[in-house]
Formats: sequence, structure tokens, C-alpha cells
Amino acid sequence: MRYALGIEYDGSRYHGWQRQKNAVSVQQNVEKALSKIADEKIEVICAGRTDTGVSATNQVIHFETNKVRKDVAWTLGVNTNLPCDIAVSWVKQVDDSFHARFSATARRYRYVINNNRLRSAILSQGITSCHYPLDEKLMHQAAQSLLGQHDFTSFRTVHCQSHSPVRTLIHCNVSRQGDFVIIDVKGNAFLHHMVRNIAGSLMRIGQQLETVAWLGEVLEAKNRCVAGMMASAAGLYFVGVDYPQEFNIPKPALGPLFLL
Amino acid sequence: MRYALGIEYDGSRYHGWQRQKNAVSVQQNVEKALSKIADEKIEVICAGRTDTGVSATNQVIHFETNKVRKDVAWTLGVNTNLPCDIAVSWVKQVDDSFHARFSATARRYRYVINNNRLRSAILSQGITSCHYPLDEKLMHQAAQSLLGQHDFTSFRTVHCQSHSPVRTLIHCNVSRQGDFVIIDVKGNAFLHHMVRNIAGSLMRIGQQLETVAWLGEVLEAKNRCVAGMMASAAGLYFVGVDYPQEFNIPKPALGPLFLL
Repeated sequence: MRYALGIEYDGSRYHGWQRQKNAVSVQQNVEKALSKIADEKIEVICAGRTDTGVSATNQVIHFETNKVRKDVAWTLGVNTNLPCDIAVSWVKQVDDSFHARFSATARRYRYVINNNRLRSAILSQGITSCHYPLDEKLMHQAAQSLLGQHDFTSFRTVHCQSHSPVRTLIHCNVSRQGDFVIIDVKGNAFLHHMVRNIAGSLMRIGQQLETVAWLGEVLEAKNRCVAGMMASAAGLYFVGVDYPQEFNIPKPALGPLFLL
Repeated sequence: MRYALGIEYDGSRYHGWQRQKNAVSVQQNVEKALSKIADEKIEVICAGRTDTGVSATNQVIHFETNKVRKDVAWTLGVNTNLPCDIAVSWVKQVDDSFHARFSATARRYRYVINNNRLRSAILSQGITSCHYPLDEKLMHQAAQSLLGQHDFTSFRTVHCQSHSPVRTLIHCNVSRQGDFVIIDVKGNAFLHHMVRNIAGSLMRIGQQLETVAWLGEVLEAKNRCVAGMMASAAGLYFVGVDYPQEFNIPKPALGPLFLL
């Protein structure tokens, strides 16, 4: 049988999603907890790997097992075996044709910035601080130039292993809720560090260090050296994955937390 | 000179606000950081002491010093000397007649409940979980019976040191934002554990284990044994203090975080 699971995690204590030999990862903790419930070794595939310090409200994974367990064992049971900063949010038995990574048609991220001269103490590892006033309207306007299919070379890290730098951005909305500026971005897929590089450039525009038109020029340049500094991992949340409707995959609130 | 400061803290790592000999407190950290900037021993008075594990978005304190420092030293400078889960949010020089505790005319708290069958991983120490569906409308309706001046004996801990059990509740609103149920309560002052005891009883009503009318009966009984179980410290936030307008004390967003 194949199962899909929704996973939420606060990534601040982890060296990213992916299992590694000498560092603590989210995947390693999830596989350990699932293996305990299944009483056999479970390996999982995720919709989108996240970097060190990046969090997720709706990571999606799938795994195979022939062990028969009640749904509650794959949720409450697994949660009992997970640290407090990782949790299963739903489980669903899926067809063998479902693949957490290859069936995904779009991924969505939110980047949360505390735009205050003084840092915050609550969720301090899960939010980026920007001490200078940000104009979120200018950021939103600039972001629209990234929509559609483009070569995103200017926003990928040199370590990116993807064969093609071409991705399709579906939306990129910047809004404000009190002191918090939220960048909400959806694309078919993302290059390595792409969201954080876009966020870093948008923050330069928000501070009026660059014009709105500059972002399109950066995109056009296809040169990583012309974009803004990469924004910190703190504040980046993987908030959702789209799958073809036939799989009927649950879609919980995007979050994080009280963000609707 | 007398200074007032706004303090935000994630209380999950601390044995409450108050300085103690053998436990780590928020006050101890704040006094240490202020003393470093002032280069003399600083002692502070707070608007409302909070218990072990309780957080604050807008605690207010005052202290005395003859040392002359720029405002930025009392904010950014102090923050540099504080752990990441405590931060100064504003500073204001005040008249000698201002007293963080005695000048306060009202205190406001928010209690945040994740009403989901499965626990959350983000801010896991800062939110209470309730696995059973809560009807926030019934909770709100019941809470209205507590408004005004009453003997709150039924909602005080036996360890409460206050001379009088009489307090005045100004508002008690229960609302929902997605999976989160928020109890927002304001009163002239609160007895020890009063907010958590009210939250515990409201959660019984929200689960329909008790009727809406029951809360008034509990209040009337003036007997701690008839109320619901005290709710956990996780999820309780001290979000604001009222002072007479003449002091012109800053009023930042209530929070926590994205809650407006």
C-alpha cells in the first residue's frame, strides 16, 4: 500500500529536510517515527526538499508499506514518536500512481518578514527581521514582472543541480499584516535558493534601494551576481503543494499559524 | 530619571517573570541586560507578573537610573544583551509619578488554542492544543456572564496571595481564526491563575461538556472545586496594559505575531 502524509515542521533546529550522514534532518526523524509504527524500515519521498532552517506547514510525503495500521496510528501514533517541532497533520491511502514529488503540479511558499526596528522575541528563529521600513506595495508591483515562464538563472545558487533554469511562476503576492510583510509565491517548481533570492531582491526594492523596474532587469540579466543578497532561511515556509484533483489530496490552511 | 520599557518574551524556557534564587526568570535576564547598559545595578518593576511558561507581547516595566544613555541604547543595546526569546520593543522616559504596576488601570491577555485533532509543530510550546471540536460561539456567550465586578474565588488558585477576590472584567471575547480559538480577556487586574482557570472552564463549554449557563453558576459558587481544570500555561500571552492617557505610554499591536 502507498500512503501520503502531510507534515508540519519548525525547521530551525534541523539541517534541512534531507537525510544526511552527519547532521540531524527532518526526513530522518520522520522515517524513524514511521518505521517504529510500521515495525519495518520506511523510506519516504517528499514533494519539495527544504534547506537548513526552513520550515513547512504543508510538506507532503509518500511511502510504501504492506503493514496494516489504522489511520490514527499513522497520525497520532507517529506524532508520539516525533519531536515537538515535527508533526503529521493528515494521512491518506493513495493509488500507486501518486508520487509526492513527480505528481506535484505546483509548490507554494510564504516568506515572513518582521518589519520593525526592533527584533521579535516570539518565534524569533522562524521570522526574518528587516529593520528598515519596507514599502510592500512597491515589492508587490515589482514581483509581477517575474510571473510566467522564465529563465531564473539570476535567482539560483551556483550549487543548484537542476538541468534547466526555466521555471513558471504562477503568482507572487506581497502584502502586509501589521508589522509583518508576507511574500506569497507559487510556481510549478523552484530552483535551489530561488525563493530566498527573490525575497532578498524584493527587500531591496521595499527599502527603495532599487526601483520597481530593477527586478525585471535582474531577471533579464540571467546573472546571479546582479540580484540582491539571499534572504535568511528563517521566515521561509513551504505552505502547500498542488496535485491533480483525481488524487484528492487534503489541503489544510496555509499558515504559518494565524495567517489565513 | 525614570524609564518605561515595553518587553516581549516567549516564556516557554523561563520559570515565569519574577526573579528567583534557583530558577531562570525573565526579570533576571532583563535586569542583567539593563545593568550592563547602565553600568550599574538596575532593578525593574513590571505591570503584571507572569507564571512559568507564560509569554508576553507587551509587558511594561519601569526602572530608575541617573545614567544618561541614548534611547537606542535602552532598546537595540539592551536587545544585544538579551537572549533571542526576550526583546525590548520600546522605551520612554516617564514622570516619577508613573509606576508600571500601580498606574495600570487594566491588563489584557490572550489565550490561544489550536483546535485540531493533531498537535502543531510550529510554536509548539506557545499554543495549547484541544483535540475535541470547540464551539467558540458557545464559549463567547458563556464568557459574557463574567463581565463586571465579581468575587472570582472560583477562578483563583489556593496559592493566590491577593487580599480580595474581587476583580472587574471589562471584556471577554472568544473568536476563531481557522483552527485557532482565541480567548481575549481584559480586566482591571487578575487573581493568580484566573485567566487559565477561566480558559479551562470555557473549553469545557466549547466541548459541550457543560452548558452556557454553567459558567455563571461556577462564578456564583465562589468555590474553586466547581470550575473546570486549569488550562496549560502554553498559549497564554500578556498582550497589553492600560495607563491613564497623560502618561502617553506606547500601545503596539497586541499579537501574538499575526493576530491583529
